[in-house]
Amino acid sequence: MTEAAEPAVEPAEDAYALDAAVVDAILAAVEVGARERLVALLNPLHDADIADLLEQIDQPLRARLIALWGADIAPYAITELRSGVRDLVVPLLSPEQLARVAEELETDDMVYLVEDLAETDQEKVLDALDDADRMAVERSLTYPEYSAGRLMQRELVSAPEHWTVGEIIDYMRASDDLPDEFYDVIIVDPRHRPVGMVALSKIMANRRETRLDTLMNEDFRIIPADQAQEDVAYAFNQYHLITGPVVDAQGRLVGVITIDDAMEVLEDEAEEDMKLLAGVGDEEIADRVWETARARFPWLAVNICTALIASAVIALFSGTIEAIVALAVLMPIVTSMGGNAGTQSLTVAVRGLATRDITSKNMWRVVRREVIVGVLNGAVFGMLIGAVGFIWFGTPMLGVVLWLAMLLNMLVAGLVGILIPIGLDRAGADPALASGVFVTMSTDVIGFLAFLGLASVMLL
Amino acid sequence: MTEAAEPAVEPAEDAYALDAAVVDAILAAVEVGARERLVALLNPLHDADIADLLEQIDQPLRARLIALWGADIAPYAITELRSGVRDLVVPLLSPEQLARVAEELETDDMVYLVEDLAETDQEKVLDALDDADRMAVERSLTYPEYSAGRLMQRELVSAPEHWTVGEIIDYMRASDDLPDEFYDVIIVDPRHRPVGMVALSKIMANRRETRLDTLMNEDFRIIPADQAQEDVAYAFNQYHLITGPVVDAQGRLVGVITIDDAMEVLEDEAEEDMKLLAGVGDEEIADRVWETARARFPWLAVNICTALIASAVIALFSGTIEAIVALAVLMPIVTSMGGNAGTQSLTVAVRGLATRDITSKNMWRVVRREVIVGVLNGAVFGMLIGAVGFIWFGTPMLGVVLWLAMLLNMLVAGLVGILIPIGLDRAGADPALASGVFVTMSTDVIGFLAFLGLASVMLL
Repeated sequence: MTEAAEPAVEPAEDAYALDAAVVDAILAAVEVGARERLVALLNPLHDADIADLLEQIDQPLRARLIALWGADIAPYAITELRSGVRDLVVPLLSPEQLARVAEELETDDMVYLVEDLAETDQEKVLDALDDADRMAVERSLTYPEYSAGRLMQRELVSAPEHWTVGEIIDYMRASDDLPDEFYDVIIVDPRHRPVGMVALSKIMANRRETRLDTLMNEDFRIIPADQAQEDVAYAFNQYHLITGPVVDAQGRLVGVITIDDAMEVLEDEAEEDMKLLAGVGDEEIADRVWETARARFPWLAVNICTALIASAVIALFSGTIEAIVALAVLMPIVTSMGGNAGTQSLTVAVRGLATRDITSKNMWRVVRREVIVGVLNGAVFGMLIGAVGFIWFGTPMLGVVLWLAMLLNMLVAGLVGILIPIGLDRAGADPALASGVFVTMSTDVIGFLAFLGLASVMLL
Repeated sequence: MTEAAEPAVEPAEDAYALDAAVVDAILAAVEVGARERLVALLNPLHDADIADLLEQIDQPLRARLIALWGADIAPYAITELRSGVRDLVVPLLSPEQLARVAEELETDDMVYLVEDLAETDQEKVLDALDDADRMAVERSLTYPEYSAGRLMQRELVSAPEHWTVGEIIDYMRASDDLPDEFYDVIIVDPRHRPVGMVALSKIMANRRETRLDTLMNEDFRIIPADQAQEDVAYAFNQYHLITGPVVDAQGRLVGVITIDDAMEVLEDEAEEDMKLLAGVGDEEIADRVWETARARFPWLAVNICTALIASAVIALFSGTIEAIVALAVLMPIVTSMGGNAGTQSLTVAVRGLATRDITSKNMWRVVRREVIVGVLNGAVFGMLIGAVGFIWFGTPMLGVVLWLAMLLNMLVAGLVGILIPIGLDRAGADPALASGVFVTMSTDVIGFLAFLGLASVMLL
């Protein structure tokens, strides 16, 4: 490596973003159909960055790029695509491109490519595989979606308990079908059930005659093939696993999951929670206007219903508002603060459940804390806004009404903010799902009811 | 392994949650000061689960558990703690416990333990280290918080370019100071600058005489020590890195970051975004009432100011509301829908920026899409709610006003929902920070202004 080619050692402003000039050059090459230039430009890029580029352009341009790329296509650029774009791109692949993809990918990546395709498209891709691989992929597809069985790869290195360091090294040197990269050797009993795992670094550090079962990793966890991928990702993060052996219902080793796959799931699950909380569904940046509008429609539809319920509550007090118009001016403050406080509790609860920090053991302590926090902040902010209301409209009692309504609403906000996600979790649903809509409905209804109701009683 | 001891191969209902009976037994042992029972109960647990337990109990109980645990303390149970609890637990450690912790941990974990401690507490821990380790930790602490330099460990295996498989294996077998677990050997030039990386699985699969530089990994990325940890985590996830060599400003190898550390950062950053969006700050489930109330205070304080601005807008139209009280009944629908639509755009934008899916290249396309989606959904829901308003109050023009106000507000929601996080990102701030408060303020103000303003003009 020469002095000039040395990489920058200062962190870049825009670290790891695609270079706009390169993107322009690539798109220009596609525009004029300059195949060799396109290949030369794509070659130095990482497959994941090519995937990002494919996500950022529109479908007609994607089709032209894929066609022009031809047999030089990078199989991993396709597996790196987000699912929405992946399902648009895979049907574009020519038989020649499919053959290249099939030859290079491991089974977990093949499963990812075909799992959501229409049956005829799926058939076309599977036909490009040899019989053994095809069977392996079809077997993986029998596991439920989002399960360990879908996530695992079948390529792995296992050894019987009595083997030594020397034997496994000789075995690996002789084998020409090792996985691309692996970090552990799975130790199995005669019935092919995993009993332990030895890290490659341990094998390298020991003499040839050392038995493998004396080097086994203490942190060894077996993953059932139908375990939810969310739980798998949690286990990897919690226990710092690098490799997780996956077993079938009989406890036999059928594959392994590695930490890089788990990392992707962890990221996806966090993203899903965030989007569910905001009611965005599984839309992606690459989606078009129509898909995006449709993805956001359901949550907005639910919200309009809850907003109407809140309006109905206000309508109950039309007479009071007609008498004291200041109520209409001040009432959104009560609901806005309640909605915010509720969202705060809700977010903490959803994260706490995702990271298993809320358990049946400490649940009631957490609920109690949320309620007390609601009362504390409600008292303080209620007092503040009560003073503002008093000064603004010159009615001391209006200040008292504001104060009480705020206190009550922030108490309720804390309570529903924590109880709704916990309740959904207990019921087996995703705690982030639609929690927001229930929480803001509660704080809107209680907020208007408390404020206007108290005003009717205390001010008229 | 006998038949009876076989692990369950069905996914558990509550996978990886702490067993409540075990927790009760542990707490009972602490209660009565039964040291041997405590140690026997904690021993089979994973350090990460012990850390979870420590997070879930209160500080006096923690202090008693730590004291009773004595010299048997598991050092990694301490490093697994979340930062808030960690800073409460480390000062509890006895000199004897500190010595045990110092002996076992690698430099990255030591840095994590002491980085936020008060200087005198930090001194106490550092004193337990031998001189070389102490210097290494102090050097790491000179790197900025949340940088690669803080995240990396100094323990690594490197080799010159001309070494062979046989030489590195002999070196590792002879060395008694290898890192606990590692996955790659870093290849360095004579000036100790990393030029490549060889996976252990490649070393194992090749003959002794093979030169290491023929086996180098293509996916090799050098990480500057002062790069932000967020960018490091992104690179690991994007490029499926397992090991990342960290270099100083002169490009010399100073440490490595491994994927399990990056995974934790990725999870933390997603959590941070989620919490910032909800205005929760960096509170943790283990925080007490007072800390929690205080952590949520700032966002609520900002929100009360923006709510007052919205109220001031309503106050401008007091006369109109007095004349048509239906306006007070319907106005929260307009702002509620605007707030929700804005939050949707905002969430998509924050995720898109975090995953680098929004770039300068596609930014304007994304902005345009958000505006069009806002107009589409605004038109549909505006029509719906306009019809409801007309039927409810019998005034056709009221329906028209509602429709127009909703359309306008949802357009604005899309626009500010996407532009505010992009603007914050450009300005070098976290796009999630306080975005929510600006977005809801905009949709509240515009919503009330549009609805009441149009009503004044068209209905009076």
